[in-house]
Amino acid sequence: MTRYLAPAALLPAGWTDDVLLEVDDHGWIRSAAAVATERHAAVRLPGPVVPGVVNGHSHAFQRGLAGGAELRSPGGDTFWGWREALYRFLDRLGPDEMEAVAVQLYTELLEQGYTRVVEFHYLHHDPRGVRYADPMEMSHRLAAAAAAAGIGLTLLPVLYQAGDFGGARPAPGQLRFLNDCDGYLGLLDGVSALGGEARGSVQAGIAFHSLRAVPPSAMDEVMRAAPPDLPVHIHAAEQPREVRDCQAWSGLRPVEWLLHHQPVDRRWSLVHCTHMRPHEVGGLASTGATVVVCPSTEGNLGDGLFALEAFLDAEGSLAIGSDSHVSTSPVEELRWLEYGQRLATGRRAVAASDRHPSPGRRLLEAVGAGGAAAAGVEVGALAPGHQADWVVLDPSHPVLAGRRNDGWLDAWVFSGNQSPIREVWTRGRRVVAEGRHPHRDAHARAFRRVMSQLMK
Amino acid sequence: MTRYLAPAALLPAGWTDDVLLEVDDHGWIRSAAAVATERHAAVRLPGPVVPGVVNGHSHAFQRGLAGGAELRSPGGDTFWGWREALYRFLDRLGPDEMEAVAVQLYTELLEQGYTRVVEFHYLHHDPRGVRYADPMEMSHRLAAAAAAAGIGLTLLPVLYQAGDFGGARPAPGQLRFLNDCDGYLGLLDGVSALGGEARGSVQAGIAFHSLRAVPPSAMDEVMRAAPPDLPVHIHAAEQPREVRDCQAWSGLRPVEWLLHHQPVDRRWSLVHCTHMRPHEVGGLASTGATVVVCPSTEGNLGDGLFALEAFLDAEGSLAIGSDSHVSTSPVEELRWLEYGQRLATGRRAVAASDRHPSPGRRLLEAVGAGGAAAAGVEVGALAPGHQADWVVLDPSHPVLAGRRNDGWLDAWVFSGNQSPIREVWTRGRRVVAEGRHPHRDAHARAFRRVMSQLMK
Repeated sequence: MTRYLAPAALLPAGWTDDVLLEVDDHGWIRSAAAVATERHAAVRLPGPVVPGVVNGHSHAFQRGLAGGAELRSPGGDTFWGWREALYRFLDRLGPDEMEAVAVQLYTELLEQGYTRVVEFHYLHHDPRGVRYADPMEMSHRLAAAAAAAGIGLTLLPVLYQAGDFGGARPAPGQLRFLNDCDGYLGLLDGVSALGGEARGSVQAGIAFHSLRAVPPSAMDEVMRAAPPDLPVHIHAAEQPREVRDCQAWSGLRPVEWLLHHQPVDRRWSLVHCTHMRPHEVGGLASTGATVVVCPSTEGNLGDGLFALEAFLDAEGSLAIGSDSHVSTSPVEELRWLEYGQRLATGRRAVAASDRHPSPGRRLLEAVGAGGAAAAGVEVGALAPGHQADWVVLDPSHPVLAGRRNDGWLDAWVFSGNQSPIREVWTRGRRVVAEGRHPHRDAHARAFRRVMSQLMK
Repeated sequence: MTRYLAPAALLPAGWTDDVLLEVDDHGWIRSAAAVATERHAAVRLPGPVVPGVVNGHSHAFQRGLAGGAELRSPGGDTFWGWREALYRFLDRLGPDEMEAVAVQLYTELLEQGYTRVVEFHYLHHDPRGVRYADPMEMSHRLAAAAAAAGIGLTLLPVLYQAGDFGGARPAPGQLRFLNDCDGYLGLLDGVSALGGEARGSVQAGIAFHSLRAVPPSAMDEVMRAAPPDLPVHIHAAEQPREVRDCQAWSGLRPVEWLLHHQPVDRRWSLVHCTHMRPHEVGGLASTGATVVVCPSTEGNLGDGLFALEAFLDAEGSLAIGSDSHVSTSPVEELRWLEYGQRLATGRRAVAASDRHPSPGRRLLEAVGAGGAAAAGVEVGALAPGHQADWVVLDPSHPVLAGRRNDGWLDAWVFSGNQSPIREVWTRGRRVVAEGRHPHRDAHARAFRRVMSQLMK
């Protein structure tokens, strides 16, 4: 057991001064409460402490393509052209490249305040679609990358079987993603064993790529056979064409189809949900499922704006993800999630409410709870039974100067394009000090080496 | 004369390797061209060189409020509630506070790649509206701040006379802004003399706050009396209410009114222009006037999206500004300017064209030319006769790894939320080295002191 003393901390009950945090030897918070007198046996944390942010949706390898798939093709570009660029990039990406890119990404995520990443992992096989000698090869590489960086990992092996709705044959660029249900369940078993004794270091979860890529019978088979307590993720309703194709196939929109045909509940996370009608917003919120929005990627790909206000009003569970990693900053995601609403409505403080007047705090607390649900681990709050994943802000940083409590959060979210983070801790260990990961330079060197090979 | 050798540079003709840049002793580029052999007498620049970015619209003091005016008021918030918060903040802001806040801001702007700032300066008098002993007091403070940081300054004293369209009486919060035309022209003379012998260190310009705040007769009087070669700036069409009020007053929308009643041409910069009809977009573009868009502020205030694609198609002149400084990064402005278009249209690479396939380069080159027009100084290009204002990128930074030429620009704009800038130079002097301003810590200390006073 180690004791930490924070000058201020955002507890579930609100901002509290002089907080003692007790953390057990496995990295779980045992108690978090104000102390009347200083305890000299405690380690002093050098600033206000807030829960770390869960990154609810990541494809780690796409960090290698971030900012590198922007060129216009003759005639113009869409999401679908970007997907072709992605498939070409994948032709050259093997296990070593995957690991180096993931280590770099996870290091960047930690420095920006993410303490756990939910990896939506569909790159299982070699570039021709041939299984590696160990079918878990790529999963091991992601787990090794998370361990090297020190970030918490929820690893979702992804089921991918078809090229489009109705079981269309996969394209050559998709061969690396494919598994039959038995192969998939084997992967899921393997990932579930990765954490070993250390509860919470690697958490497994189920993922279906999308309704395009997974026939209903395969979803049903996996849901029947898989353990009943794992989180379940799926991409849904990101692009208008996907919605139209889903309607042509089933008569229903993607979120409608899931609400009708799958036992969507608190275990479930639906990624994007950009294109929902009001009845889908309300229906989905009422199931307790989490929506993982990815504002920077959705902006980059031209997906559209999530119905944030209606979903929060319906008490929906919200998380954020950096997805394609065109941004690795949680606060850039949150501020542009909010700004998208402001631009659409002409009003400010849309994510706030009379009861929650600070939009920065409302958004951070919402994605704390939703991120924990998406990750399938008790994180996102400074409370007993939660992982000791936290961020120590630097109140002397110019971004935060003159602010206090909720003011720190609004300033971080709404003006923090230089990061006011002093330290980041995951499972009771400090992994970022003075704003820097201790292995930042070594990780960047390995990443540069790989990128210069990949771009040859 | 000093000679610099860049391993690569973005010249007006395009990316060029091994470029020799010759800079005279006043900080102006004399030549910029490829050299066949290395000249050992040249100073080597440690990375690819691109023109510095002009920040075409700044209210420096608002940096003190960035991220600090986000709380929801009961019943909800709009632009107009934010303006009330701004006026309250101003009650406590004197010359010393103005200077410390501006020094901090300008230091941050330089580190992020802005090399010149166009200061739209309307805070002339003391909190009760009383003239300072020297009516130029606040202007001197801004010039001192720019000199302390080393950023190029275009200083626009702003004419402000009325509380609303039709000459309504100013509100108490506006007393600090007011001048009659003679007082205003005196300020303009004073600012014009600030640069002294050093052409380009401080450039003066004219600004009318808005059609709300300046009666037509006053605009005409200033335009007749002021020197005929200064840039002219005005806020226009930021908010729907402003457009409606302008129509009620004149029968015309703000941009329509300006096109009808003022000699709008290349000297003019219209700030925001969020709410334009297609005929206004085309009409404005054809005058050669510059539109200064401020995407992060327009997002924060819920203004709306600028008609970027139509304006670029009409060959309009574009600049960016950080305005209220909720972001101090030019690339955050540019990427969300582009993402706004993608979200609205469902297409990617909207700012690109078949002739200009890289949206990062297209946007940076557009705001280079437009920024120079807005600033009234030859900047924004690595070419003879331009100020030696440039940014040296760090090609080994993880944001740029594996990229080259336009790929550096797309990666910087579309994935650079950690800054890949190694050096920044203004007028031939290096003002940022290894990504840091040499006085970063001292400037932050002074800023913190002021902010803790202001927030008491």
